[in-house]
Amino acid sequence: MTEISQRPIGVFDSGIGGLTVVHELLKQVPAESIVYFGDTARVPYGTKSAEAVRRFALQDAAFLAGHGVKMIVVACHTASSAALGLLDGRFSFPVLGVTEPGVQAALRKTTGGRIGVIGTRGTVQSGIYVRSLTEKNRQIQVWAQACPLFVPLAEEGWLDGDVTREIARIYLEPMIQAEVDTLILACTHYPLLKNVIAQVMGDSVQLIDSAEETARVVKQCLDTNMIASPGTNPAGHRFYVSDIPIQFQEVGERFLGRKLGSVQQVDIESIRIDEPD
Amino acid sequence: MTEISQRPIGVFDSGIGGLTVVHELLKQVPAESIVYFGDTARVPYGTKSAEAVRRFALQDAAFLAGHGVKMIVVACHTASSAALGLLDGRFSFPVLGVTEPGVQAALRKTTGGRIGVIGTRGTVQSGIYVRSLTEKNRQIQVWAQACPLFVPLAEEGWLDGDVTREIARIYLEPMIQAEVDTLILACTHYPLLKNVIAQVMGDSVQLIDSAEETARVVKQCLDTNMIASPGTNPAGHRFYVSDIPIQFQEVGERFLGRKLGSVQQVDIESIRIDEPD
Repeated sequence: MTEISQRPIGVFDSGIGGLTVVHELLKQVPAESIVYFGDTARVPYGTKSAEAVRRFALQDAAFLAGHGVKMIVVACHTASSAALGLLDGRFSFPVLGVTEPGVQAALRKTTGGRIGVIGTRGTVQSGIYVRSLTEKNRQIQVWAQACPLFVPLAEEGWLDGDVTREIARIYLEPMIQAEVDTLILACTHYPLLKNVIAQVMGDSVQLIDSAEETARVVKQCLDTNMIASPGTNPAGHRFYVSDIPIQFQEVGERFLGRKLGSVQQVDIESIRIDEPD
Repeated sequence: MTEISQRPIGVFDSGIGGLTVVHELLKQVPAESIVYFGDTARVPYGTKSAEAVRRFALQDAAFLAGHGVKMIVVACHTASSAALGLLDGRFSFPVLGVTEPGVQAALRKTTGGRIGVIGTRGTVQSGIYVRSLTEKNRQIQVWAQACPLFVPLAEEGWLDGDVTREIARIYLEPMIQAEVDTLILACTHYPLLKNVIAQVMGDSVQLIDSAEETARVVKQCLDTNMIASPGTNPAGHRFYVSDIPIQFQEVGERFLGRKLGSVQQVDIESIRIDEPD
């Protein structure tokens, strides 16, 4: 198994948001090498059709598979919602999403069975959280709310202040009315707004950070499949994107929480999607 | 010239914002047929690199050229800024952008030679407005400001209200400080926020709506080249997009100001960019 264990973990996202998941992987599985792909030429996915997101996700995964990864983490809630079923079983290695880890954590932590979910319009309209939560426990009540301005606010770096708090108040009002006890941050950008969201929701509501939970599940999956890196070689981190947009470095480092190092640009649109292997 | 005159005008944009230009064309040149392409699968362009925007714009224009258009209107400020030079001269028909019409109108209307420009980060960083305005009149002083949250606000339909006014106040503060007398709305989405922008800027500041000015220049160009439609056949309007995202119809109709009718989806990423003809 030595060979497989030393392969990198592949992580992809619609853009740079998935770097919040990489940030957690660096903390929880520091011995692992990582290949990251961010589809910055076509970002965002959250406002696009499920059909487009599935096409993009297949290309993103094919790109990572070409790098000999031992596992793929779909570090994008919209792509996890729309395409995880399509990706899972298509490869000889495990493909994990960011939905299930958040669902499992919310079910563990809820005190009164009242769970809120906030995400992009694509994630909310997919209905995946409501389905997954209530399938596992019929007593659970779920409220879901799209917060389309949260992503541009996080990218603009308006992480607190009156405007951000007021927007959070407007979006989260239905969650407060519903008296949810647990709130899943179902978008990779939302952990950056955690302070404001916590202030608006109040102390009694537990926030579920999917990035943290996903890294935990990745660690379990590596152990269960006995493919964790032995740590004999230094971990390498490679970052690929489909565009190097304005302020990429600055915004990327805000999400990763450290220096990004070198980033390579690739032409994702030319990646052919092969039949399942 | 009859044959050419009866061909449609091609209009493209990164998404649905260009429908504000179509809205003005329907008013100012109602006899013209229009083929519109909105790159909704890769929207927005305003946050992406100039290199990516040029590649996208070449594909968008090639798609419209394939529809036998007699003129192309680049109804996207970011694409006009990054790619108009590249597109102009590449085809046997005129290619017009949205930058020059706004520049010309601002130069006509300014009372004190103090002009403000607001747009996406891509448009502002291109420096095209500052260059174009000061090249034509060295006495003119120009202030430019990116307003990244205006596009998601317009798409979310938050066209007025306290949050939008407060965000406008933050972005426009440098324009007020600079005492600009004229403000160019250098993004197709911004006319939707015109009321709030006007309130924040005050009555003494003239707002330039590039969509209106562009339609005026299109009319002139049709007349000068003697390719205006004789109006003998009913004008046809065809809409193509690269994705039909969530709420497309609703948002599209907000921008167009009327019913959209049928919209066809096309695979823009497969369009080959040929050598200049």
